[in-house]
Amino acid sequence: MDNKEIKIGLLGCGTVGSGVYKILEGNADSISKKSGAKLVVNKILVKDKTEPLVVDVNKDLLTENFEDVLNDSEIEIVVEVIGGVNPARDFVLRSLKSGRSVISANKELIAKHGEELLAAAEENEVDFYFEASVGGGIPIISPLKEDLAGNKITKVMGIVNGTTNYILTKMDQEGAEFDTVLKKAQELGYAEADPTSDIEGYDAAYKLAILASIAFESRVNIDDVYMEGITKITKEDITYARELGYKLKLLAIGKQNEGIELRVHPTFLPKEHPLAKVDDVFNAIFIEGDAIGEAMFYGPGAGQMPTGSAIVGDVIAAARNINYGAQGRIACTCFDQKEVKNREEVESSFYIRLDVIDKPGVLGEVTGLLGNNQVSIESVIQHGRSDNSTVPLVLVTHQIKEGNLQKALEKIKSLEDVKEIASLIRVEE
Amino acid sequence: MDNKEIKIGLLGCGTVGSGVYKILEGNADSISKKSGAKLVVNKILVKDKTEPLVVDVNKDLLTENFEDVLNDSEIEIVVEVIGGVNPARDFVLRSLKSGRSVISANKELIAKHGEELLAAAEENEVDFYFEASVGGGIPIISPLKEDLAGNKITKVMGIVNGTTNYILTKMDQEGAEFDTVLKKAQELGYAEADPTSDIEGYDAAYKLAILASIAFESRVNIDDVYMEGITKITKEDITYARELGYKLKLLAIGKQNEGIELRVHPTFLPKEHPLAKVDDVFNAIFIEGDAIGEAMFYGPGAGQMPTGSAIVGDVIAAARNINYGAQGRIACTCFDQKEVKNREEVESSFYIRLDVIDKPGVLGEVTGLLGNNQVSIESVIQHGRSDNSTVPLVLVTHQIKEGNLQKALEKIKSLEDVKEIASLIRVEE
Repeated sequence: MDNKEIKIGLLGCGTVGSGVYKILEGNADSISKKSGAKLVVNKILVKDKTEPLVVDVNKDLLTENFEDVLNDSEIEIVVEVIGGVNPARDFVLRSLKSGRSVISANKELIAKHGEELLAAAEENEVDFYFEASVGGGIPIISPLKEDLAGNKITKVMGIVNGTTNYILTKMDQEGAEFDTVLKKAQELGYAEADPTSDIEGYDAAYKLAILASIAFESRVNIDDVYMEGITKITKEDITYARELGYKLKLLAIGKQNEGIELRVHPTFLPKEHPLAKVDDVFNAIFIEGDAIGEAMFYGPGAGQMPTGSAIVGDVIAAARNINYGAQGRIACTCFDQKEVKNREEVESSFYIRLDVIDKPGVLGEVTGLLGNNQVSIESVIQHGRSDNSTVPLVLVTHQIKEGNLQKALEKIKSLEDVKEIASLIRVEE
Repeated sequence: MDNKEIKIGLLGCGTVGSGVYKILEGNADSISKKSGAKLVVNKILVKDKTEPLVVDVNKDLLTENFEDVLNDSEIEIVVEVIGGVNPARDFVLRSLKSGRSVISANKELIAKHGEELLAAAEENEVDFYFEASVGGGIPIISPLKEDLAGNKITKVMGIVNGTTNYILTKMDQEGAEFDTVLKKAQELGYAEADPTSDIEGYDAAYKLAILASIAFESRVNIDDVYMEGITKITKEDITYARELGYKLKLLAIGKQNEGIELRVHPTFLPKEHPLAKVDDVFNAIFIEGDAIGEAMFYGPGAGQMPTGSAIVGDVIAAARNINYGAQGRIACTCFDQKEVKNREEVESSFYIRLDVIDKPGVLGEVTGLLGNNQVSIESVIQHGRSDNSTVPLVLVTHQIKEGNLQKALEKIKSLEDVKEIASLIRVEE
């Protein structure tokens, strides 16, 4: 190998940016052998040069001005780890248009503006890679775009948010309520001070939009993702999950049959399912394809070094392409705009927990209304009377159209002996 | 996209070859969009043109003569799915030397002759890819060479043989003995008539040699892999595994610390370990890297369509490289020849099951001899007396050097009250 160097502009040097820098420095020898060039960080964009960094860098590389990166003609690869849409979108677009390959870990940016950014990459014959945007360090985007490219993918189903998986795991293991565990997760740094994006499902929805667009080769609009968070999950639901042979997980689910389905919601999953065994902050993505059958990719879904690992993998790929003049080799694969199914048309099984007055005939009334709406029941649990006047009535349906269930529930709600529809959780097989 | 075609020569059209053909036909539209060219099988090498095939192909493509493939100047990619070393090695070498990129699923060939074949690919500026040689459909070689390329990999540990995993799973679930389950596996087609390569560990050893050479960036000699099969495993051992909180799996283990370790053997694995939950014919590869931490890749380790999926993924990658003139983009990564540790120096914990005369003092004698050789004990199980005169004495050691244990066992063997060293199984954490 000659002494060729490829220069990198790093936009952002917080947790993840520092990880990228550390890996490029720490494993420089092996990385340069694989890349065919020495990879050198030439500029680092920070908000405030006087603020201390978590990694030891040459201070001369720092700048507070994006133009300094853009005008550094030596830079061939730009790494964006700022996060959020603004100003990341502008920086990424201008980098691509100036002929730089760009690596980004920014799920929100890609879920919302992927089409525009991938088009800019294609137009300018450069690469736009974003492995780190889903599943942290877990290779999943590249396997879908390359290794599994011969498959028609029919299902992609993932635990893609570590914070909520940690909370649900602890609720299960400790029999604790959501609020208690959330507070503990915040103390431990597993949940942010404002946890909305995680616990309401936004983070998982961005990731599903990215995964599904690649898996199903279709443009996906983030607004087409149905989203439900975990804030209403109670320890009762988790106890019933166990009693019924399930684990409760927040899943991002994409399916392709006639049209595609896109949904993020708490889910009862059979306890033998590979995803049901993924606990704590770990992530995993389970896929089904017509050739491979099923496969799963498991690992750390966040963190400085795992996310850095995914970004550096992309940087090496981009560097290899520069060496071979092969930029654009892996381009956008959203060949279609497939129809996203109406929520009423989506088929699923449901776990329903009602609070009912403990007297004869209630079960008959409820199952009657379900039956009238083509909702058939797989199992019922009605435990002994509690001290107060209501008891829980738990039902699990067969695979049914959600629209039919909604109609039945409207009527069940108005029954005199039904005090509340306490829970409604989808069941996956 | 224009109407560019890339022609393929298929060497072999048995189970896996048929899978490749089916996928290329069935998903042709999506595959050609991703490849930037229509992928067309132009010749199929078979042993006997009159024998029926499991897939419907144009009979004009068939030939019994490899020269017909080699002399078809339109062919740019050769897929080798013959298996075994001869004549596959000759065919692959000549294909590479004639300027064709080659895809192979042939673990034995690559484990034994990978160096020569990769060198030929590099010399002739073509690709030699072999994702399907390890883990069937599971993407693992490409993730190691690309997505995880920024990591120093310290451990690669896998269930890479479906037959033995099926046998051990059934022994566990049904409390059955090895011979009984093997026979059933053969009836079901999960084990071959001559199961030697699977049950003695050869198949796993080939795969470990390939995995370790990539993970540790080092030339690996297949003879450096220590190998032990599962034929001596009894249901007693599996029962003790459960009692001690372990699952018994045949693992292929590679570690990199000072020097590298390469071993295939039955292993006690904590039942919470992600690999411990991989049952039946499924495969999984667990890795540890300095940046990513831990990750696991799970899926079907064999079969027509899963293996076909991996091969077609490689074909698409090779086609993309041809389109971009980027052949050789992912080359051999065996930069070093790292020292493989002497077996005596390898550190591990051990489960030891002895048959001893049931009388006071035996335990003291045994543990004394172990202690004299720096073998410390983590736990002991000595259940009540059986009807015959001997009882099992089960010990689990701490992490110790294997050489020290061998010395102690030599002496323990000669104790009058020790009738047999019935089992010796390594424990991984």
